[in-house]
Amino acid sequence: MISKSQIKLIHQLQSKKFRKREGLFVAEGPKVVGDLLKRFQPSAIFATAEYKETLGNNNIEVTEVSEDELLRISFLQHPQQVLALFPLSDDTSKVTVDTSKLALALDSVQDPGNLGTIIRIADWFGIDTIYCSEDTADAYNPKVVQATMGSIARVKLVYTDLLSLFTTLPPSYPVYGTLLDGDDIYSQDLSKEGIIVMGNEGKGISQPLRKFINHRLLIPSFRKGDTAESLNVAVATAITCSEFRRRS
Amino acid sequence: MISKSQIKLIHQLQSKKFRKREGLFVAEGPKVVGDLLKRFQPSAIFATAEYKETLGNNNIEVTEVSEDELLRISFLQHPQQVLALFPLSDDTSKVTVDTSKLALALDSVQDPGNLGTIIRIADWFGIDTIYCSEDTADAYNPKVVQATMGSIARVKLVYTDLLSLFTTLPPSYPVYGTLLDGDDIYSQDLSKEGIIVMGNEGKGISQPLRKFINHRLLIPSFRKGDTAESLNVAVATAITCSEFRRRS
Repeated sequence: MISKSQIKLIHQLQSKKFRKREGLFVAEGPKVVGDLLKRFQPSAIFATAEYKETLGNNNIEVTEVSEDELLRISFLQHPQQVLALFPLSDDTSKVTVDTSKLALALDSVQDPGNLGTIIRIADWFGIDTIYCSEDTADAYNPKVVQATMGSIARVKLVYTDLLSLFTTLPPSYPVYGTLLDGDDIYSQDLSKEGIIVMGNEGKGISQPLRKFINHRLLIPSFRKGDTAESLNVAVATAITCSEFRRRS
Repeated sequence: MISKSQIKLIHQLQSKKFRKREGLFVAEGPKVVGDLLKRFQPSAIFATAEYKETLGNNNIEVTEVSEDELLRISFLQHPQQVLALFPLSDDTSKVTVDTSKLALALDSVQDPGNLGTIIRIADWFGIDTIYCSEDTADAYNPKVVQATMGSIARVKLVYTDLLSLFTTLPPSYPVYGTLLDGDDIYSQDLSKEGIIVMGNEGKGISQPLRKFINHRLLIPSFRKGDTAESLNVAVATAITCSEFRRRS
């Protein structure tokens, strides 16, 4: 049985303002919730009797809900057995870059679907951290959480001022970006560590940030004559990550 | 000035049934309409005075519309100067495969956004033809047309029974598919011609079609331990096409 105040709280968590205030985000379905449970302690779980059984007896308190109740709290068209609330990270320590690893940085990626797909790509290619500009879509938006298909459990999202962050990097630390005047990515040496910057859907990488890019990459088009003007940002991220990893 | 019957017709073209009946599809905005106009004769153009001017005097009949009228017929949240109707191809000749080229085949790709992104990827990588199973999302759905960002003007979509089509291929003609038991794509020889089959978002490539795949490919995950279960179909298409083309 779920209370009215719980229903109200969950509905409010659709908004970033309320997620910040409550320090919580929503995850749904056995796959996404299951992946998060492997790493994080939930604040609340609302599950059908069927799903509750699969959890066994591991000290997690579960509120049993009917299909109708689940439908009332779910953000999905077809609710999937479980909705859980997880705490947002309250890590306020200074952001630093682990310079031994490959990471992604997103400069104002706006579309929640693109962000979710990029998190899934980072997971697949073993990239642990994504630095996001403050104006990038919020990864804890229920739409993004679901679009990651559970990858949000394994990839750390760090929202920060990218310009300030980049000034902390060691001199000549590799910062990559895909730009129209870049060098053919297929024939470049790509390092095992570094930051790959991906830009906004319409405007690409912002001018101030471009100054930090010391390796300009181009994914060449193979069509003769007029062609697509650009690739979707998630698609460009996938091809770039694939190129880095196949050489490792 | 646009007539009531024209408004009604355009609204109806959101449905596949009406597109088939009328033999028309809708394209919007200077980029998509502009790319289509380079190759196809429109059936009708509805444009603001501003856009009409850019068309010059090239025998295209244009109905001038106000911003308000455009808003009434547009499928976009923010209409962009022009909406045009183009004829659907009425090519009823037998479908054959140009065996000197690389092509894509989509087996029941359901999401219009994925389909639009895949058409854009095919365009970028110089793939001219996409064979689609009859139950693949309709490429002439206004959402897909817009998601292609104009690439639909350069890539031919052929809806057909893929099983029948594949039986017409020469013996041992290369048919590629990404499958979980495939061989690491990064170390495979990939031919300049062939068909790359991409499957449904949830179920992958259907069993009957798998029998035709004589080159099983795997995009390996680079994460140790548990990882994402799969890549989004458009992302997998992008990485696969990139691998084929970088060797050419």
